[in-house]
Amino acid sequence: MSDTKKNPVKSEELGFGQKAYAKSTRLISPNGEFNVEKGGLNFWQSLDIYHELISMKWWNFVGVITLVFLVANLLFATLYYAAGIDSIAGHASQSGLDHFITSFYFSTQSITTVGYGKLYPDSNVASILAAVESFIGLLGFALATGLMFARFSRPGRNLIYSDKAIVSPYQDINGLMFRFASGSKNQLIEAEVDVVISYWSASGNRRIFKGVNLERTKINFFSMSWTIVHPIDEKSPIHGWTKEDFEEKQVELIIMFKAFDDTYVRQVYDRMSYTADEIDWGMKFSPIYDDAKKGKIFIDMEKLSKTEPAQLN
Amino acid sequence: MSDTKKNPVKSEELGFGQKAYAKSTRLISPNGEFNVEKGGLNFWQSLDIYHELISMKWWNFVGVITLVFLVANLLFATLYYAAGIDSIAGHASQSGLDHFITSFYFSTQSITTVGYGKLYPDSNVASILAAVESFIGLLGFALATGLMFARFSRPGRNLIYSDKAIVSPYQDINGLMFRFASGSKNQLIEAEVDVVISYWSASGNRRIFKGVNLERTKINFFSMSWTIVHPIDEKSPIHGWTKEDFEEKQVELIIMFKAFDDTYVRQVYDRMSYTADEIDWGMKFSPIYDDAKKGKIFIDMEKLSKTEPAQLN
Amino acid sequence: MSDTKKNPVKSEELGFGQKAYAKSTRLISPNGEFNVEKGGLNFWQSLDIYHELISMKWWNFVGVITLVFLVANLLFATLYYAAGIDSIAGHASQSGLDHFITSFYFSTQSITTVGYGKLYPDSNVASILAAVESFIGLLGFALATGLMFARFSRPGRNLIYSDKAIVSPYQDINGLMFRFASGSKNQLIEAEVDVVISYWSASGNRRIFKGVNLERTKINFFSMSWTIVHPIDEKSPIHGWTKEDFEEKQVELIIMFKAFDDTYVRQVYDRMSYTADEIDWGMKFSPIYDDAKKGKIFIDMEKLSKTEPAQLN
Amino acid sequence: MSDTKKNPVKSEELGFGQKAYAKSTRLISPNGEFNVEKGGLNFWQSLDIYHELISMKWWNFVGVITLVFLVANLLFATLYYAAGIDSIAGHASQSGLDHFITSFYFSTQSITTVGYGKLYPDSNVASILAAVESFIGLLGFALATGLMFARFSRPGRNLIYSDKAIVSPYQDINGLMFRFASGSKNQLIEAEVDVVISYWSASGNRRIFKGVNLERTKINFFSMSWTIVHPIDEKSPIHGWTKEDFEEKQVELIIMFKAFDDTYVRQVYDRMSYTADEIDWGMKFSPIYDDAKKGKIFIDMEKLSKTEPAQLN
Repeated sequence: MSDTKKNPVKSEELGFGQKAYAKSTRLISPNGEFNVEKGGLNFWQSLDIYHELISMKWWNFVGVITLVFLVANLLFATLYYAAGIDSIAGHASQSGLDHFITSFYFSTQSITTVGYGKLYPDSNVASILAAVESFIGLLGFALATGLMFARFSRPGRNLIYSDKAIVSPYQDINGLMFRFASGSKNQLIEAEVDVVISYWSASGNRRIFKGVNLERTKINFFSMSWTIVHPIDEKSPIHGWTKEDFEEKQVELIIMFKAFDDTYVRQVYDRMSYTADEIDWGMKFSPIYDDAKKGKIFIDMEKLSKTEPAQLN
Repeated sequence: MSDTKKNPVKSEELGFGQKAYAKSTRLISPNGEFNVEKGGLNFWQSLDIYHELISMKWWNFVGVITLVFLVANLLFATLYYAAGIDSIAGHASQSGLDHFITSFYFSTQSITTVGYGKLYPDSNVASILAAVESFIGLLGFALATGLMFARFSRPGRNLIYSDKAIVSPYQDINGLMFRFASGSKNQLIEAEVDVVISYWSASGNRRIFKGVNLERTKINFFSMSWTIVHPIDEKSPIHGWTKEDFEEKQVELIIMFKAFDDTYVRQVYDRMSYTADEIDWGMKFSPIYDDAKKGKIFIDMEKLSKTEPAQLN
Repeated sequence: MSDTKKNPVKSEELGFGQKAYAKSTRLISPNGEFNVEKGGLNFWQSLDIYHELISMKWWNFVGVITLVFLVANLLFATLYYAAGIDSIAGHASQSGLDHFITSFYFSTQSITTVGYGKLYPDSNVASILAAVESFIGLLGFALATGLMFARFSRPGRNLIYSDKAIVSPYQDINGLMFRFASGSKNQLIEAEVDVVISYWSASGNRRIFKGVNLERTKINFFSMSWTIVHPIDEKSPIHGWTKEDFEEKQVELIIMFKAFDDTYVRQVYDRMSYTADEIDWGMKFSPIYDDAKKGKIFIDMEKLSKTEPAQLN
Repeated sequence: MSDTKKNPVKSEELGFGQKAYAKSTRLISPNGEFNVEKGGLNFWQSLDIYHELISMKWWNFVGVITLVFLVANLLFATLYYAAGIDSIAGHASQSGLDHFITSFYFSTQSITTVGYGKLYPDSNVASILAAVESFIGLLGFALATGLMFARFSRPGRNLIYSDKAIVSPYQDINGLMFRFASGSKNQLIEAEVDVVISYWSASGNRRIFKGVNLERTKINFFSMSWTIVHPIDEKSPIHGWTKEDFEEKQVELIIMFKAFDDTYVRQVYDRMSYTADEIDWGMKFSPIYDDAKKGKIFIDMEKLSKTEPAQLN
């Protein structure tokens, strides 16, 4: 695209601006979403049904579909009931609640297109209602199928991060580190990670964003755990800072992850952040590999967050 | 690919040619489509049913499906009717319109596969027609399911742009600016924008396309609003131009947007343009953030297009 | 990946080798497929059902599905028939062909799950067969739905190329050109083209592949027609060649196209080739744009291949 | 992203660490999966149903669906049976096993929504159960449809590699080679390959990973077979090594493949490895092309692994 691309894009360009929010606002929620709320949208825009339906948990999704099914049947049952006692044939003359219940059963048999036929529409109104209902039923299930597949084709958020980031001895200096691994069997390849440190500058009255050097930013196979290390050398923006500085400056460690998921055949992204109170000082990660199992490389995921004290340099 | 790639591609290469159209033709429609019409295609090519079905609004799509359902039933009802009074059993002897209506009801019960069975096919012709109809019904709903999912898997065009671009004071010069934001909850990441200014050169009798420098062309998280600024410095092709020049030269500001939509797990693109009469001079954008809400970064989308007068440099 | 990537990849690396085929074999078929046949695969590998089902024309696809439906019903009809006269109830006692026809009708009513119920299974064998058949019917339609969507999600091959490539005057030299455009309403963006000239070297007894310079290799919007020009200057491998040389050397112009289809939200690729006898000498392309239509840029696709004589330099 | 990207990523960065596993552990399984096992996950995480359902063979998948269908019907049959003799009408009074069998048939007729109607629910409990069952049936088939499509949209692992890698004379030195080809009709384009040699360093007590130079790392069309050659020149990490060195150092040749599949319209990746005992010394590949077939380039896939002795340099 334009010539301006010649200047390499820096990780600092997070798109959060610098003055738009109060000093203590977290930028990335623990679930990886942006901590941003948009007002002034109309009802449908702010509802964003599709986003909800494919993001919610499976049990909630099944609950929503079941609820829609129930409501649709109650609605049609009411319509058949209103159409009168003779609209549905195949049952003994009934009145009141029994009539409504029969209407409801007939509705369920129509919307699912099971149509046993013991109950059947016996008036023009009921015949048309039944045609409409089974048509809607089929469209509804087509919609549910589409949504299910849309859910399936979205890689889940399966990365497991260590509970805390740590400041740990690294070579002859210290390093800011965290550890993470994929919690699923998905084959992640060409994995890249990028880290930005954000902090509040009291003098400038604004948030500063600094991309930081990492020991390694890309690996070809993300099959094991990966410990990301930012060496706190003289070039580091946090060189010489203490735990107290981290808290005072409201440091937030913003992590951007990118890989190709060879199971879903999709590019996947993830975001994560550690705030100052989620960073432990003077710890190191305990080993996570187990040599006892022969023939397989074995990782014990329970130890992902396990640390032990270590003397800082 | 070939060695010619060594020369970086310029944004000027929009693919619109330079002489192909009248001076005053807009290149990009406000809905983001190319303002191009192709003649000389055959009927099916120019109809392009699939493109229509997945691009039209949801209500139109539902309308089309309902219409197809109705027409199919009318067609089959006519065939059953033509097959004679005895082809469908399970109803009192009827004639004329009543017979046709019964045929229609039977058709709806077959095509949706609800098949209550009170009405049933009672001749060879009717049995074969019913088999064909329920087969077509299932294929049709399979097709509708596929289309629904194709619609679902296409990210909508949810970007909201400021109504006008503005020429505004910027540092100690002026800047050409516009502001935009995503109108949905979709997580857009790795967003890039590129701007080309197109204008009519009276001396050359052709349209000129110039890629222009931007304050920033890429951000990692497009979660808030983004104000794109082209600084009108000495390198700018519009340096020194006035509002009158913009109108006389038929300036069109062409915007290309690109991001990864982490909800749809898709690359998304958008196009937009502002023509000379959609550019306001001597305005600046009003703040869009609201500090009152604690714990969340809050954007008031209603203020996206809001401007206030500002003294140009 | 490895350090070897530092050397830029050349378009010559087509992957066709140099000696593997007879002098006169075409490399790319006119339909864009590789002109390669693989032997020695087992039956299923060489059949490659999925590839066929999603590549075949729509009418053939519908034909295959209909055939499968018919065959499945004949099979189940035979099984019901074999299960004896009493296995299906709800019809007058029948024998021979009539009994088979009734079994066939019942089969169609089961596999589509319409299940009117006038005919119903009345033995254990028939009940189990009917359960299996409606289960298979549903799975089959699920499969058909999946295939339909797989077909939908594949962008068609909608590019229309000029029938012939031409050698035409270009600036003060000549150029080898062809013209193409999208035949659909799909929005193609970030389009790239690359051209390799392949010819037979009698002295080396092998095919040579040369990537050639183009006037332009990438455009941002491929909304109109695009004339690709290879300027035949002194650096061109075909500099000074005549029409006779082209034929003798079995020249094949191999075209690689790549773009993002913003309707299908997919990367699309295309391949095409012109052989020596598909290259006209001393012609130029006639204009394809029409200024008469105001407000829209108008392209007359019928004129895409239209040429007129031109004096070569 | 960050400045650290300025240093080109090396293929050595496989992500396997260097000390995490025993000397003799294979890194890539012959089926292309990482030879890694993760412990300490909870039941659902380690089960990873979705991964299994879309990765298993088609017959297994059909088997799983059939089993689920059977179990669901047995479950509902038990519920109808428990609801009592009068809950399902339309059959002669039955008891015990016959009653259960009738309940089972009714269940299959409800879950598939065929609903003949000879059997029909005749109590409130049965009516509600039947409504639930046909609802579940539809959802289940929607789920199966989604899974089927997810399976369809995943390109299979169709690459066929030569059984052995070989050390073969190459120009005036030797080369480490293997040969592979696509076993399907899919059109693979823009294919890239990268090779890393991993070996055990006794002195360092760790695994070393070295990216190696290849004769060619990318081709535009992967339509024929491709012989990958690592020239064992002085820059090669295995320069001067013997077959015995390979075995002693536990050499593993790790192959990373990447291409665009123009049939599935997807990026595809593959991984493969050859261990020391899968590398033959002093062989060369036999020709695989057949000139006898005119008009088509013909490859005999049966000869892919065929080698013949050759004198090493």
